Amino acid sequence: MNTFRVLEIKKTVFSGNDERAKKLRNDLEQRGVFLLNVMSSPGSGKTTTLVRTILSMKEQFNIGVMEADVDSDVDASTIAATGVKVIQLHTGGMCHLDAEMTREGLENFDIQGLDLVFLENVGNLICTAEYDTGAARSIMILSVPEGDDKPLKYPVMFQKVDAILVNKIDALPLFDFNLDRFKKHIGALNPRAVIFPISAKTGEGMEAWISWLTNEVTSWKTIHTNQ
Amino acid sequence: MNTFRVLEIKKTVFSGNDERAKKLRNDLEQRGVFLLNVMSSPGSGKTTTLVRTILSMKEQFNIGVMEADVDSDVDASTIAATGVKVIQLHTGGMCHLDAEMTREGLENFDIQGLDLVFLENVGNLICTAEYDTGAARSIMILSVPEGDDKPLKYPVMFQKVDAILVNKIDALPLFDFNLDRFKKHIGALNPRAVIFPISAKTGEGMEAWISWLTNEVTSWKTIHTNQ
Repeated sequence: MNTFRVLEIKKTVFSGNDERAKKLRNDLEQRGVFLLNVMSSPGSGKTTTLVRTILSMKEQFNIGVMEADVDSDVDASTIAATGVKVIQLHTGGMCHLDAEMTREGLENFDIQGLDLVFLENVGNLICTAEYDTGAARSIMILSVPEGDDKPLKYPVMFQKVDAILVNKIDALPLFDFNLDRFKKHIGALNPRAVIFPISAKTGEGMEAWISWLTNEVTSWKTIHTNQ
Repeated sequence: MNTFRVLEIKKTVFSGNDERAKKLRNDLEQRGVFLLNVMSSPGSGKTTTLVRTILSMKEQFNIGVMEADVDSDVDASTIAATGVKVIQLHTGGMCHLDAEMTREGLENFDIQGLDLVFLENVGNLICTAEYDTGAARSIMILSVPEGDDKPLKYPVMFQKVDAILVNKIDALPLFDFNLDRFKKHIGALNPRAVIFPISAKTGEGMEAWISWLTNEVTSWKTIHTNQ
């Protein structure tokens, strides 16, 4: 008998963030700035995916990127090379951004004239999922080498996002990642989420994702502004 | 000019944990229980690595495993199949274990008679690194697909560990991971850390890691107990 005990340890209680997130979302709607919260584990390919996405979309939209990291500036340098406006947020050991931190970032960024701001959240599947940042939409990137069981282990993340990019599909032959099994997990947790298998390295599948995002931004703008 | 601004956001302050961790470490020394804190990102192969390690070491040591997860029991089931004693800790949204939570887990686990307890920490490179759990040693597993730049982005993690397992080296041909560059980053951050390139899938490199750990446990036992 291979049994084990389950022990529940204390739970953190959050308060006030939801209200602040709602307020920020309303403010951004009035200013016509579509904020996209991008979450993932470390090393899932957030930055590479963003670079490809930005290069495809920057003719159509005025884009800004807020890079949130505990400490370094590595990704901001990479993103800045695309020519769009970038700000690096250092969270000083915090593993997430909440709505207030996001607002602080945006206020220091000067978003006037921007259509679309990517918030590259801290690399983390837990804390980031627990705080509404005030973004119009949230997405997460899971890479094939991480395994198709991640929705079982980090359900909150997978429940909260509007779209899931399954990155590094060029590595599928090497890893035991079953896309059908993954879709089944997501179907149970969050049936409204759209799933895009992509390879940010080779470009495979990027078109469908970019077309989805373009549609989201455009229809959001139609609803919230006079454009 | 691809420049960007850097904005520092508020820092969390911890207090009291270091003392509690020291006390727990002393208690475990007196009881002869070697606690190994195992950290990594989600999907780096912690559980697969542990299974192989346990199967190689379980004849020589009485082993227990504490599985810490936000919510699920997936890994505990896998580990339990090796036949060693397992407990699942649910952190209820918390992204790390501190010394008090670790003690609570150990007290509910009944460690009497165990030589070696693996603490499979929550999948996360940030919060887990910030709290001393009271373990005798800490290690982290980084997998090749995550990239060799991770020490630059998560320096605290790489600074604090005694050993680093670079997992999934069977996937090296497919990813831009330069082992020499990685070793250089570690040399700058934490020159005393031992690095073991391994593939928990194929077994490559496992022998060196297991031999290191066996030595660490044996010499620790010689110092702290009468064995």
